[in-house]
Amino acid sequence: MLSFVNDYSEVAHSNILNRLFDIQYDKQSGYGTDTICDSAKEKIRTACDCPDADIYFLVGGTQTNQIVIDTMTAPYEGVLAAETGHVASHEAGAIEFSGHKVLTLPHHDGKIDAGELADWVETFYADGNHEHMVFPGMVYISHPTEFGTLYSKDELVALRKVCDEFKLPLYLDGARLGYGVACEESDVTLKDVAALTDVFYIGGTKVGAMFGEAVVFTHHNAPKYFVTQMKQHGGLLAKGFMLGVQFDELFTDDLYLKISKNALDTAKKIKNVLKEKNYQFLIDSPTNQTFVVMDNEKLAELEKKVNVAFWEKYDDTHTAIRICTSWATKMEDVEKLIKIL
Amino acid sequence: MLSFVNDYSEVAHSNILNRLFDIQYDKQSGYGTDTICDSAKEKIRTACDCPDADIYFLVGGTQTNQIVIDTMTAPYEGVLAAETGHVASHEAGAIEFSGHKVLTLPHHDGKIDAGELADWVETFYADGNHEHMVFPGMVYISHPTEFGTLYSKDELVALRKVCDEFKLPLYLDGARLGYGVACEESDVTLKDVAALTDVFYIGGTKVGAMFGEAVVFTHHNAPKYFVTQMKQHGGLLAKGFMLGVQFDELFTDDLYLKISKNALDTAKKIKNVLKEKNYQFLIDSPTNQTFVVMDNEKLAELEKKVNVAFWEKYDDTHTAIRICTSWATKMEDVEKLIKIL
Amino acid sequence: MLSFVNDYSEVAHSNILNRLFDIQYDKQSGYGTDTICDSAKEKIRTACDCPDADIYFLVGGTQTNQIVIDTMTAPYEGVLAAETGHVASHEAGAIEFSGHKVLTLPHHDGKIDAGELADWVETFYADGNHEHMVFPGMVYISHPTEFGTLYSKDELVALRKVCDEFKLPLYLDGARLGYGVACEESDVTLKDVAALTDVFYIGGTKVGAMFGEAVVFTHHNAPKYFVTQMKQHGGLLAKGFMLGVQFDELFTDDLYLKISKNALDTAKKIKNVLKEKNYQFLIDSPTNQTFVVMDNEKLAELEKKVNVAFWEKYDDTHTAIRICTSWATKMEDVEKLIKIL
Amino acid sequence: MLSFVNDYSEVAHSNILNRLFDIQYDKQSGYGTDTICDSAKEKIRTACDCPDADIYFLVGGTQTNQIVIDTMTAPYEGVLAAETGHVASHEAGAIEFSGHKVLTLPHHDGKIDAGELADWVETFYADGNHEHMVFPGMVYISHPTEFGTLYSKDELVALRKVCDEFKLPLYLDGARLGYGVACEESDVTLKDVAALTDVFYIGGTKVGAMFGEAVVFTHHNAPKYFVTQMKQHGGLLAKGFMLGVQFDELFTDDLYLKISKNALDTAKKIKNVLKEKNYQFLIDSPTNQTFVVMDNEKLAELEKKVNVAFWEKYDDTHTAIRICTSWATKMEDVEKLIKIL
Repeated sequence: MLSFVNDYSEVAHSNILNRLFDIQYDKQSGYGTDTICDSAKEKIRTACDCPDADIYFLVGGTQTNQIVIDTMTAPYEGVLAAETGHVASHEAGAIEFSGHKVLTLPHHDGKIDAGELADWVETFYADGNHEHMVFPGMVYISHPTEFGTLYSKDELVALRKVCDEFKLPLYLDGARLGYGVACEESDVTLKDVAALTDVFYIGGTKVGAMFGEAVVFTHHNAPKYFVTQMKQHGGLLAKGFMLGVQFDELFTDDLYLKISKNALDTAKKIKNVLKEKNYQFLIDSPTNQTFVVMDNEKLAELEKKVNVAFWEKYDDTHTAIRICTSWATKMEDVEKLIKIL
Repeated sequence: MLSFVNDYSEVAHSNILNRLFDIQYDKQSGYGTDTICDSAKEKIRTACDCPDADIYFLVGGTQTNQIVIDTMTAPYEGVLAAETGHVASHEAGAIEFSGHKVLTLPHHDGKIDAGELADWVETFYADGNHEHMVFPGMVYISHPTEFGTLYSKDELVALRKVCDEFKLPLYLDGARLGYGVACEESDVTLKDVAALTDVFYIGGTKVGAMFGEAVVFTHHNAPKYFVTQMKQHGGLLAKGFMLGVQFDELFTDDLYLKISKNALDTAKKIKNVLKEKNYQFLIDSPTNQTFVVMDNEKLAELEKKVNVAFWEKYDDTHTAIRICTSWATKMEDVEKLIKIL
Repeated sequence: MLSFVNDYSEVAHSNILNRLFDIQYDKQSGYGTDTICDSAKEKIRTACDCPDADIYFLVGGTQTNQIVIDTMTAPYEGVLAAETGHVASHEAGAIEFSGHKVLTLPHHDGKIDAGELADWVETFYADGNHEHMVFPGMVYISHPTEFGTLYSKDELVALRKVCDEFKLPLYLDGARLGYGVACEESDVTLKDVAALTDVFYIGGTKVGAMFGEAVVFTHHNAPKYFVTQMKQHGGLLAKGFMLGVQFDELFTDDLYLKISKNALDTAKKIKNVLKEKNYQFLIDSPTNQTFVVMDNEKLAELEKKVNVAFWEKYDDTHTAIRICTSWATKMEDVEKLIKIL
Repeated sequence: MLSFVNDYSEVAHSNILNRLFDIQYDKQSGYGTDTICDSAKEKIRTACDCPDADIYFLVGGTQTNQIVIDTMTAPYEGVLAAETGHVASHEAGAIEFSGHKVLTLPHHDGKIDAGELADWVETFYADGNHEHMVFPGMVYISHPTEFGTLYSKDELVALRKVCDEFKLPLYLDGARLGYGVACEESDVTLKDVAALTDVFYIGGTKVGAMFGEAVVFTHHNAPKYFVTQMKQHGGLLAKGFMLGVQFDELFTDDLYLKISKNALDTAKKIKNVLKEKNYQFLIDSPTNQTFVVMDNEKLAELEKKVNVAFWEKYDDTHTAIRICTSWATKMEDVEKLIKIL
């Protein structure tokens, strides 16, 4: 059975597994105070051209969003996000669990618009009742978005400008960051992300790691006692070096970008074939997720041989599905899929 | 440099690492819905002789304590624990973060006493003002305790009886459970733990795994929508199968107990030598942690060659330290240590 | 200066103040355990034709919403409300502070639609990912709404049906309930409200009391240890009898409805004059709040003599304002206002 | 039936009730923005000799403690308090509900000791693991304490010094502050309290008001957007002027101190008689609460004629009770009580 169901189905890149054997019995100090974490952080600072970065490793995406948002906003503040943002809809209320409201903006293929953001904040402060409302305390974006789309550099610069104007930190959820910054259609690099945001995370779970996300506070702006706050949220790993190892490998010899490229290349191959075959796309996304509309009968056939993700009902005879590639997708599997499509 | 500083310094047992290679590119379904997790759970049910167990895997100990306590107690309830319990003192307020108070009882070498527990609860309900107080909602114990001590089976039965009388769930924190149930001095087996508690967790992080804890609800009593609540607390791993793999290996051919034995054997060797040399023990603990009082000059010498954990100042010329072994401790390192002691 | 700015500007009805003198030095027991509270509750049960009601008194509306929603929903549940609902927008995140998300539905003049509610819940459960989302746990409506509009009995019955189908408790925020149930245009009585909801509150603060809201759990369904939970939320008044006194007076000889009538009569007089003068209404509301569009120059004149509430900018030359009457509004002040309009 | 059961049994001082009539139909602006609140605040600033005070009015004591502690401490901080402090034991977990731990110190007749406080904080920072613990973020004291005892000025100065050394805000819970500062045995004035603390509250509920507490931030140190945070906690009263009125009256012509004196005078009379009659005191407290040990048979007789508060079982034949006077206690009732004692 082929599977293109998501990008977190496989264990991890071999370099990571090999490294685990290499250091199996070495004695590392606990809670991320080890030298491997130090090394990984330094490599990330270099890759981001961001010498002032405070870097911490966390285990998963929802955990990271909860901790970053909760620790960087005041108790009376919420986080602004697209209504389709992961924090707004698919984190089981993890943000509200920590006491913060998600303030939603309209989305445009998963992205928020700088002009609409500015309008929202201006309207908020113009409202005489705003002291009875949740203050905007942070702007959350995902890149790639939940729809696989990407901000252009101009769009990020525009968001940055609004954030500066209203003194709002800009937070970029990079659960699939590799698939964004390695994308040829995009003019946004890892360095741009570091330069234009206050905090972002580099997703490991979906890009070659067993698990783990690297949170980058871009200008020595990590919240006070961040390790304590990680612990308080249940997010401090005893064997923090397990996270260090993975990012140390991913940021050696550009591995992170190289394996991201594999997901993009395999996705592009699939997209091209779908275009040739005149499939309709639900959304035009340049990264590793492909959203396509399929005749229900055809889909029934397909699902006998391939696992794909149901996305939404399109109409009575069609369904939108997601075909997802990853760092681990093999071109031979893509060839097999293409024959079935 | 030798190290006996803690039991979470090494990566993981080889069986686990080998298994990761074996399944590296297999496609597993997400969030713990995979077949490896199913297999691991079944093995744990068998090992615990607990066919009615609901089992979930979480990443770390503080996370597990926070989620179990928060989801199994009502909002107006707190958790009863020894004043030295991990939840009471060393989790950075993770329990309070989720809204619950830790109600402390006196400790006796890290353990709570069934009689004192009963008295506490009786006094609580006798107090005419108890509607203005935090209700007792759960009893938390650790086994081994934070001091490496163990409850006897009689002691556990006595606690169970009090819990039954007051309808309080009994929760056992088994961060180092292997080092307890594999201990020859103890009459408490894994099956006893399952039979006498409402919920407990089998610690992986400190006993052979890279990370991970297996939460066992012993009689189909997992909180409703527990997966959603794990997600809400930031504790749901996308690649849940990474946890399944580890516990599947640890519960194959009694590996969990076998490697626990190694920690106990090496610790006993050290304890015996310390006794012979007439060192004073801070506390008499039968498991993998050894608490010993050392002359400061002697300690300064020792620390040139061995990492140990500072525990507390004993007096002006002595310090209490902890010497910790683990599943990974090599007897040759113990021999080297002994020569230095 | 005339004022029609809101309905919480005056102290309280004379019957309440007189009663305070009558009982000034009587010794009442604390925390709502007194006989005056008992008397008030019994009168409310009778007025609602609801002998099975559990009744508690709280101090203010936001406090009431927070406590009712938090104590009646599971931790993984949110509350469904109109996007314009008070809990969604004007409570400074009080609901999120207690860990719950407000799940918003479109509004129709401030009201939610039973069909849209059913669709929302059906779609939620149809989504394969719903375990990663916030579960619907309660339906919140306000009556009158934030726009002064009212549900018809048929609309409430339809909502009740959907709530029954999906086992969702229906909660009615009655901050201005008197102005709803005393309204001639409405076919919804206090008894209907009690019969069709699981919990509602009778607003005192805006209807004749100094402060206070009476929460009615309609079928002995008050959350367990509700007094303790009130205390935990900071909402338990030491002199609970102060609340009892006020509701005891308001529910003697139909005072609550009689004084509500005054707000409606004075509002109707204003609405009629506005209609005669061809003012445009922002929204057609039958209760004590009148939303009218005014030429900015005219408004500037008006505001020299009358305090009204700015509602929103209508266009470049017009503004929407709210003219609000209350239990205390004097017809002579209305006459003065009319001359100015 | 006589009653000396507590100090919140009666409505309020006549000056307050009369004022309510005087302003019954005046139109006040909402949420504490009215001129009566302004006047009350100015009178309090004068009475405290504290021109830099930010003052807010809240409804009750537990609410005040929750809001002050939550808004003045960081999320990773707890509050240090005597183990007998109200926040530690009798607020149903209101502090933990807002995410903070109460860190307890030993009590000495309800008071904490400056030396023990300093030791606690020093030990905390000396512990290598303190990043895994709840940081001390505030010191809470009550004055009078829950046992009716008082800090001396020297004791307060000593606490202030420790707080300065460790940069900890000092918070004084003055639920019964009047009964402390009006006490002849005490050298601590209202001005001393304002000079030596960072924040304190002046209790109204137990000292002449219907309800209400005045929070005084002594040096323009109110938390940012405090009104919004009050609202978020459910503690913002729509008719804020109701609180202003009461404190405006209490701080006119020293009313607050004068009526406090009544409670002290009546309590002293009772204490003197008890001493003459050789009753044993449970604790030696100089304020309005008298804790006395009574033979059970004698108590049974007493309770036929007088309501007093059960405090605790003393021994098999004796019970400790509390006899409580208030601003409203009549000397004639004291005379009647004395005859019975």
